[in-house]
Amino acid sequence: MATATRTVEEVCACAKQGSRELATTTTQAKDAALARLADLLGERTGEILEANAADLADERAVGLTDALRDRLALNEERVTSMAAGVRDIAALPDPVGEVIEERTLASGLRMKKVRVPLGVIGVVYEARPNVTVDCAALTLKSGNAIVLRGSSYAARSNGVLATVVREAVAEAGLPEGSVELLDGGDRAELAELATAEGLVDLLIPRGGEALKEALKSVATVPVMYAAAGNCHVYVHEDADLEMARAVAYNAKVQRPGVCNAAETLLVNARVAERFLPEVLADLRDAGVELVGDERARAAASETPVGAATEGDWDTEYLGMKMAVGVVDSLQDAIAHVNRHGTGHSEAILTSSDDAAEGFTEGVDAAVVYVNASTRFTDGFEFGIGAEIGNSTQKLHARGPIGLRELTTFKYVVHGDGQVRS
Amino acid sequence: MATATRTVEEVCACAKQGSRELATTTTQAKDAALARLADLLGERTGEILEANAADLADERAVGLTDALRDRLALNEERVTSMAAGVRDIAALPDPVGEVIEERTLASGLRMKKVRVPLGVIGVVYEARPNVTVDCAALTLKSGNAIVLRGSSYAARSNGVLATVVREAVAEAGLPEGSVELLDGGDRAELAELATAEGLVDLLIPRGGEALKEALKSVATVPVMYAAAGNCHVYVHEDADLEMARAVAYNAKVQRPGVCNAAETLLVNARVAERFLPEVLADLRDAGVELVGDERARAAASETPVGAATEGDWDTEYLGMKMAVGVVDSLQDAIAHVNRHGTGHSEAILTSSDDAAEGFTEGVDAAVVYVNASTRFTDGFEFGIGAEIGNSTQKLHARGPIGLRELTTFKYVVHGDGQVRS
Repeated sequence: MATATRTVEEVCACAKQGSRELATTTTQAKDAALARLADLLGERTGEILEANAADLADERAVGLTDALRDRLALNEERVTSMAAGVRDIAALPDPVGEVIEERTLASGLRMKKVRVPLGVIGVVYEARPNVTVDCAALTLKSGNAIVLRGSSYAARSNGVLATVVREAVAEAGLPEGSVELLDGGDRAELAELATAEGLVDLLIPRGGEALKEALKSVATVPVMYAAAGNCHVYVHEDADLEMARAVAYNAKVQRPGVCNAAETLLVNARVAERFLPEVLADLRDAGVELVGDERARAAASETPVGAATEGDWDTEYLGMKMAVGVVDSLQDAIAHVNRHGTGHSEAILTSSDDAAEGFTEGVDAAVVYVNASTRFTDGFEFGIGAEIGNSTQKLHARGPIGLRELTTFKYVVHGDGQVRS
Repeated sequence: MATATRTVEEVCACAKQGSRELATTTTQAKDAALARLADLLGERTGEILEANAADLADERAVGLTDALRDRLALNEERVTSMAAGVRDIAALPDPVGEVIEERTLASGLRMKKVRVPLGVIGVVYEARPNVTVDCAALTLKSGNAIVLRGSSYAARSNGVLATVVREAVAEAGLPEGSVELLDGGDRAELAELATAEGLVDLLIPRGGEALKEALKSVATVPVMYAAAGNCHVYVHEDADLEMARAVAYNAKVQRPGVCNAAETLLVNARVAERFLPEVLADLRDAGVELVGDERARAAASETPVGAATEGDWDTEYLGMKMAVGVVDSLQDAIAHVNRHGTGHSEAILTSSDDAAEGFTEGVDAAVVYVNASTRFTDGFEFGIGAEIGNSTQKLHARGPIGLRELTTFKYVVHGDGQVRS
């Protein structure tokens, strides 16, 4: 696994080789590897925490913010939780081999559309060493080989975790090359990974906008971005206002730092004066900083609401701040969401089927909610289990990226000597 | 539609606007527009042929090869065939609104995964003016707006065809902006289209490798390449050799200029001497130039077979030439296909279920055939109707790109005030 003597291309070629074999590995063998991995994480906790302590003590980690140091830090509980996550992934149904469609064609050919692994998945990530284990488990279960590329300041933690994963893989008889770890070195390494055409079938960056921009300009392999969420809650004129108050509060406050939290509250003008004073007071009491348009500020009653700038409508705060706007109609609400949203999760509160249908049809987003919080966009809530992230792309995967989204399909066609005339 | 006074961004913005409305347009209205388009093509044939004649007479068309001039040329029969194609597309089922999955989540939320249009699809094409009509019909039926960008030397033909499409769209009450045509001017226009993020949801280049390379380095919007096919026919040791002879012949000769034609014939060493003399004589008699490895040449008997270079195994001849190789085992055949193939269409001839399974599982391609010609990879043969091309990508679409592949999905989630705890 040492990459010191191997080029990125050589590492990816090993993964490609492994992926060929992994594609036809049984569910049983894959689950055995995951069970062994969960056990090994328990057995080797001491070694893992030692490596992590060395990372945290390293000069490269000294300059990190507290938030980043917290993400980097492991403890016994976190390792236990990693192991539990691996067991949960082992318990999920294997997507590989699923027959998506089956049909006899006019030519008499018998066609099956069968789910198969993608091949080699590259994952680029920052800080959190648990990603090493989470992503390796998801890709193994879906029959893919993985090439991991973490941050240099987490190199020791990632190294020991990858070693543990590779031991589990080897003990279960899965191919060498199933799990590869790059050094996490310079930008050149990242560029080589992003241009390893024919070797890397999908690259998933898990990180901020800087990483996304860095990849966008160089990547020639397919990339799936787990992207930002500028999510809205729209309260229609006929909404149950008590329900709306609870949903708007939950969407903003319950966990403000995640992509499915709401950033903007839109209210129909007909209910703004009745609705806004109470919900804005709730939000203020929770510590949310509020900005709004003129009508929202006027309707806010005693709650102070700052003036929203044009930029506010486009901002994913990822924190305790919310923009509040008043709109004249369902159509205006839809137009606002489509103009400023990122296509992640959008909600309407309404008691009318027509308004619900208008909103769900008109809004261009991965998930559109009627009378529920945007916070439900999540692999576990959707019943597909662990996810690598949420996609706001329209191609291939939209919404939670789970096991199935880490696969493709092939057509398998059986004949009796058919030729085309 | 005149783009002289509009920027590419403005054109794409009009298409985006149109796509919002088109997404909720009824099947009936879309089919009415397509029926009217088919009629109008008949009524306006004279005008269309006149514009085409002017394109052919233009100095820009003088330098074209005979093959390109033939692709550019329209006649009454070709216009009639275009109209028939449009009627066929109207008769296909509408993919929009299909419920892919429906489930009640643990939270009580009622989740539907519903098929929806992508939005705006850009199509970049060369020579053939019929693409203007074919692609507009496919995108309209799938609820997408289209931005067309043809070649400058087909500008008059494309212009009048796009006008006819837009008239049909207007008469059927579909939104302005459903179909837009760019000038087909310089490379800057292409780059602007390929970077119109937020406005273009998918770009489909239909052209040679030069176009693909040009886009690869600049595109920031999602691109789907209808790519090359280096397809193989492998004859296993237990194949029905008469069947294999007919299939190998068909896969090469029936229409050699298309992507699903075979370029390489692989034969198991155990049957090479029995199989090759007859099939190679057939191919030679059909005018196929043959190159092969040493063992194939030795087994060829009286048919002259040139020496294959390493490059031959990677070449999509798209013409009457074929490479012939002898392999020692099924595994060697699979390894050869995975090393040199482009992931398009691959075939095995065998009478054994084990060998068939080994090949279909081991080969990494969009379509894998057992005892049938590779030539069946096609939207019509697959029963999905007209296609925009064949994808060798693994993400989103693999194999024929038909109506369904021009859509995405959204999750529509109904609740009763659910909040996340």
